[in-house]
Amino acid sequence: MRELELLDALWEIITPVTGLGELGPGDDAALIPLDGAAVVSVDQTVSGVHADSRFVTPADFGWRSVATALSDLAAMGCEAKAVLIGLTYPPDFTSEDMKALAEGANSATAEARARIFGGDVSTGPTLSTAVTVIGSAPTGLEPVTRSGAKVGDRIGVTGTLGASAGGLELLRADATDPDGYRYRRPSALIAEGIALAGAGVSSMIDISDGIATDAAHLGRASHASLAIDLELLPVDPICRRAAELLGVPAADLAATGGEDFELLFTAPAAAVELIEKSVQRPISWIGDVVEGDAGVALSKQGLSGWEH
Amino acid sequence: MRELELLDALWEIITPVTGLGELGPGDDAALIPLDGAAVVSVDQTVSGVHADSRFVTPADFGWRSVATALSDLAAMGCEAKAVLIGLTYPPDFTSEDMKALAEGANSATAEARARIFGGDVSTGPTLSTAVTVIGSAPTGLEPVTRSGAKVGDRIGVTGTLGASAGGLELLRADATDPDGYRYRRPSALIAEGIALAGAGVSSMIDISDGIATDAAHLGRASHASLAIDLELLPVDPICRRAAELLGVPAADLAATGGEDFELLFTAPAAAVELIEKSVQRPISWIGDVVEGDAGVALSKQGLSGWEH
Repeated sequence: MRELELLDALWEIITPVTGLGELGPGDDAALIPLDGAAVVSVDQTVSGVHADSRFVTPADFGWRSVATALSDLAAMGCEAKAVLIGLTYPPDFTSEDMKALAEGANSATAEARARIFGGDVSTGPTLSTAVTVIGSAPTGLEPVTRSGAKVGDRIGVTGTLGASAGGLELLRADATDPDGYRYRRPSALIAEGIALAGAGVSSMIDISDGIATDAAHLGRASHASLAIDLELLPVDPICRRAAELLGVPAADLAATGGEDFELLFTAPAAAVELIEKSVQRPISWIGDVVEGDAGVALSKQGLSGWEH
Repeated sequence: MRELELLDALWEIITPVTGLGELGPGDDAALIPLDGAAVVSVDQTVSGVHADSRFVTPADFGWRSVATALSDLAAMGCEAKAVLIGLTYPPDFTSEDMKALAEGANSATAEARARIFGGDVSTGPTLSTAVTVIGSAPTGLEPVTRSGAKVGDRIGVTGTLGASAGGLELLRADATDPDGYRYRRPSALIAEGIALAGAGVSSMIDISDGIATDAAHLGRASHASLAIDLELLPVDPICRRAAELLGVPAADLAATGGEDFELLFTAPAAAVELIEKSVQRPISWIGDVVEGDAGVALSKQGLSGWEH
């Protein structure tokens, strides 16, 4: 039976959870020990919608599905504990594809120090996943929400922007371009999110839609505006290469491209020094929280495509 | 924007979680207060694979998606706490469809005394859901697994069998047949599962694939065999009607049809009286747990299609 063959391929790769008091695949539900409240999110990846199958291999797809879901825990400053994978595979999906996808999912889960507790596998018209991630705030900390930004707070962002969107553009020009890696294999910044939570950020979100849109989400949730200076955006060199190729301003692509999964946060000025010391990733300070309900305000005009 | 329109339709119907310390839709993840370990399961419903779109309306689809997922918590004897819905909708899905689906999902969630905490919505080639359910064992009880059946235990089953598969066959003959209701709107037996756990069952599973297959799962997990007397199966009248129409033995359809979501369990003889008193649903005693590793043994031969 084809489904059993594919399931065998899957469980050959996925590391089952066998710890005491923890039920993995094989029972009706998984039992996940947690200290305090569960922080839970579900995130879907549909081939052709969220992942371009010309450039994203089954292994990349497995990685991406899990990493993009885990990024929501990073955005809450939470530890990742458990991953559950709902997987729909198309008629031409092979056992080798399944193993590769499971390996990618395994690696992304391991990178976040989480474990795969179970899932559900089904046939369907196209490859798609719905990944549920479960975590909790580290001992002594609360989950960081989008709604805690205060007027006067500084606005910070980790890493660089535009490497994913830029990487995809470079892959479209040349499917073998190694700079496509950040599109194919984004990272969930779990450790960075925990460090930021511990250092006292007031609000946080992961950059999935592009910093323009995500800053607006954060501003609106906090009943404030995020005044961001476009010239301070940490534009990734991959994004600059792609922008040159496309003939568009690099800052536009960096701000609207999305899927960077870097962390955008606000913090009181007093926390800046501790944040810079605590986080093992470059931090850029790109603006300030101001009065207003526009969500986001930009210091340079003329940028097209920003969604407020 | 079409996606925003559909999201508006969805959130118009879905009751957001706004309780203290609980984040619903609108942040990166949902915060779910739990006492002790989280019991978690994910279950997919793909239109055309798990639900016949000729007979299952969007409202039925929403109900079914949630109820079939919640049934896994019932099978663990757990209370249902939170529901998260990953939803993929096809190009022709309307706002009215979305509202209907959300209403169905809402009703099934409310029936189980759970709440919808969040989800993820995406376009895709077909209507499909991945529903994650989170619950916990009632205070003082442990989750009931598949692996606790002991030789000498009695085998019990709630309600009747074959109403779902029979109902589908009747719908195929006449799409307006009211007996199709049990196919379109299965129930998750959360209250019954909790009562059974409290009354001391030794193992439990919900009947999703058909009692023949699910009994084998339970037997194998418990390193025992379930000797079931086919003549004792509680065959539903709907199943008898359908079997007559098809010209097949009613017990075959009842045993292999699947999707009844009744609870199959084992219990020591000493617990039988308390079980019958505690559970607000008819209980049938259909056999005994015996030595062996075949998983399931049947007292009548000649039944085709049983999977061991």
